[in-house]
Amino acid sequence: MSITSFNPPVRTLMGPGPSDVHPRVTSAMARPCIGHLDPAFVGMMDEVKSMLQYAFQTQNQLTIPVSAPGSAGMETTFQNILEPGDKVVICQNGVFGGRMKEVAERCGAEVVMVEDDWGKPVDPNKAEEALKANPDAKVLAFVHAETSTGARSDAKTLCKIAHDNDALALVDAVTSLGGSELKVDDWGIDAIYSGTQKCLSCTPGISPVSFSQRAVDVITSRKTKVQSWFLDTNLVMGYWGPNAKRAYHHTAPVNAMYALHESLVMLQDEGIENAWARHYNNHLVLRAGLEAMGLNFVVEEEYRLPQLNSVTVPDGVDEAAVRGRLLNDFNLEIGAGLGALAGKVWRIGLMGHSSRYENIFLCLSALESVLGDMGAPINKGAALDAATAAMK
Amino acid sequence: MSITSFNPPVRTLMGPGPSDVHPRVTSAMARPCIGHLDPAFVGMMDEVKSMLQYAFQTQNQLTIPVSAPGSAGMETTFQNILEPGDKVVICQNGVFGGRMKEVAERCGAEVVMVEDDWGKPVDPNKAEEALKANPDAKVLAFVHAETSTGARSDAKTLCKIAHDNDALALVDAVTSLGGSELKVDDWGIDAIYSGTQKCLSCTPGISPVSFSQRAVDVITSRKTKVQSWFLDTNLVMGYWGPNAKRAYHHTAPVNAMYALHESLVMLQDEGIENAWARHYNNHLVLRAGLEAMGLNFVVEEEYRLPQLNSVTVPDGVDEAAVRGRLLNDFNLEIGAGLGALAGKVWRIGLMGHSSRYENIFLCLSALESVLGDMGAPINKGAALDAATAAMK
Repeated sequence: MSITSFNPPVRTLMGPGPSDVHPRVTSAMARPCIGHLDPAFVGMMDEVKSMLQYAFQTQNQLTIPVSAPGSAGMETTFQNILEPGDKVVICQNGVFGGRMKEVAERCGAEVVMVEDDWGKPVDPNKAEEALKANPDAKVLAFVHAETSTGARSDAKTLCKIAHDNDALALVDAVTSLGGSELKVDDWGIDAIYSGTQKCLSCTPGISPVSFSQRAVDVITSRKTKVQSWFLDTNLVMGYWGPNAKRAYHHTAPVNAMYALHESLVMLQDEGIENAWARHYNNHLVLRAGLEAMGLNFVVEEEYRLPQLNSVTVPDGVDEAAVRGRLLNDFNLEIGAGLGALAGKVWRIGLMGHSSRYENIFLCLSALESVLGDMGAPINKGAALDAATAAMK
Repeated sequence: MSITSFNPPVRTLMGPGPSDVHPRVTSAMARPCIGHLDPAFVGMMDEVKSMLQYAFQTQNQLTIPVSAPGSAGMETTFQNILEPGDKVVICQNGVFGGRMKEVAERCGAEVVMVEDDWGKPVDPNKAEEALKANPDAKVLAFVHAETSTGARSDAKTLCKIAHDNDALALVDAVTSLGGSELKVDDWGIDAIYSGTQKCLSCTPGISPVSFSQRAVDVITSRKTKVQSWFLDTNLVMGYWGPNAKRAYHHTAPVNAMYALHESLVMLQDEGIENAWARHYNNHLVLRAGLEAMGLNFVVEEEYRLPQLNSVTVPDGVDEAAVRGRLLNDFNLEIGAGLGALAGKVWRIGLMGHSSRYENIFLCLSALESVLGDMGAPINKGAALDAATAAMK
């Protein structure tokens, strides 16, 4: 055995995440490791929590980064809130609503599914009907920004429906945090999880979560223990909580927290409304170019996520071959379809540090080059003008 | 709100972990992020698995890094192997045996505890008695290297006892991996978890695990689903497994994997027996200095972990004040006692990149300075000569 150091290729990441990590973030990650109970680290933890409250637009005390990826954040919300026998209504319009079902069932919960077509938003009327038909439901869960399709659901309306029916609102915001409007307190979200590797320009591996006081009251009055010791917020808060003794629970991923801290400083400096506007405006530029090329969006304009652009693969085109050429010739990663959309769509991310003009023009020109060379049915020579015109 | 970038102090980490991270590892961590399904990343994953097999001294196919800290590694082993109603015998001789109990109970298992004094190794006779009294026990679980006390238990003998009684052997090797002899295949360990932040010179946040074929057979024939979707090895192996399609399960913490990869390249280049010998020889140097100063070890020599040196706080000394002065004046972190040993001991780590002469001599000289200045009952002027004499 003789393995040598790994030097990754330098890619441009325009898939569904991870997105491009800002060099300030990777530099922060490489700073010297210190102890997870070091007073200097504890001070940094307070700053991370405060900046996460800003990112989520919440005053929730229980707003912390879970020391694991977004899937663990999903489990943190479901496992802390649900007890065996509880009923939960889950809205599915893509891969991640299905994952919610898996996670909730493994909590011993009774799951009622509300299905919508992939690429469509969650239908609030169907969610309301399901809650009315199941008045004992403890939770209404849905995905705000479906990473598998690029559809945005109306979280504000869905939260109101949940509360009007005495249910908690549990929200997946993995792809929305930092990329499009998200207001935890205004909208009344009770439990929310996200990821660092999408619109925060940070490395993958950490999952920010937040719980309302209403959710905390449910968690602290549980009859059974949370099934994961590692994700039990009652224990985690001994380390992360306000006025906590910062008692040892688990060893925090110190350097990953440096990275998250730096990405949140950048979000603070940009201003969250400005970040949302940047993602939206850059989407308009990409959209103009893609549509001029003749590509069609999967999601209707009203429900489209600016940070995740799903377009239909033209007839007769080998979608994997296109992605392969983009990666090999241009070091450009775009995403394949997932689940029901596998083989049918590409997912082009404009998330965080990836949401820049230079990425958009690389993507448009490389796509035109590859699709043109493969004889795909596209309009050549129109994309760059259209994108240029769409720049403010 | 106006928070600025976090620049940590530069510490020398000689507590129970995290230990000093080698600059090669933090540099690797800062390399450009690529996609978790990128062919280049997939190739790196194979190298990580192969080097983890070397570190664990195993041919187990199911040898992977869990995308979360050691506590999640513990849950991965217990949650995958145990089903509700299963019986498990857990040996406790410190904090982490107690954590095993918490985790096993949350799996719905029936737990039989075997207690030994903190600072002592697990008594194989008591473990055997417990298994004989509970012939239906599915698992014998114990901590190979108790981080809370510095005691090493006889894993080889305990594994044999487990097998002789038709139980699987489940082992915590968070502090032993890379630091002292550990032979998964030779000893017959069926499930094992560790951490990156101890003797691998890596950052905290990832938990290497390994399962024997016997354990895999148990996992693949479960009657119930693993309670965590995120930690379900049946699913994780679709991404990490041999001949797997590298199907998306969760987004791997890409940059943390770069760090682990680099630390494992360093371990391979040093040679694992050489790493074990370095930890042991450096322990002898530190021990000579500490004992010459008049400090006493908590653990008997035969069962002492070379990488974690627990010494008794001298009478009348404010142990927290000593740690505070070491940190503030010398940027040196040593560990406090945990649980039953809180306030009574210091834990001095010589793990991974921390296990070096320069760290030992800093620690001895700083300790002598602080304890001498505080009027503690120590022998002044003897430690450095004794340590020098103990250097080969």
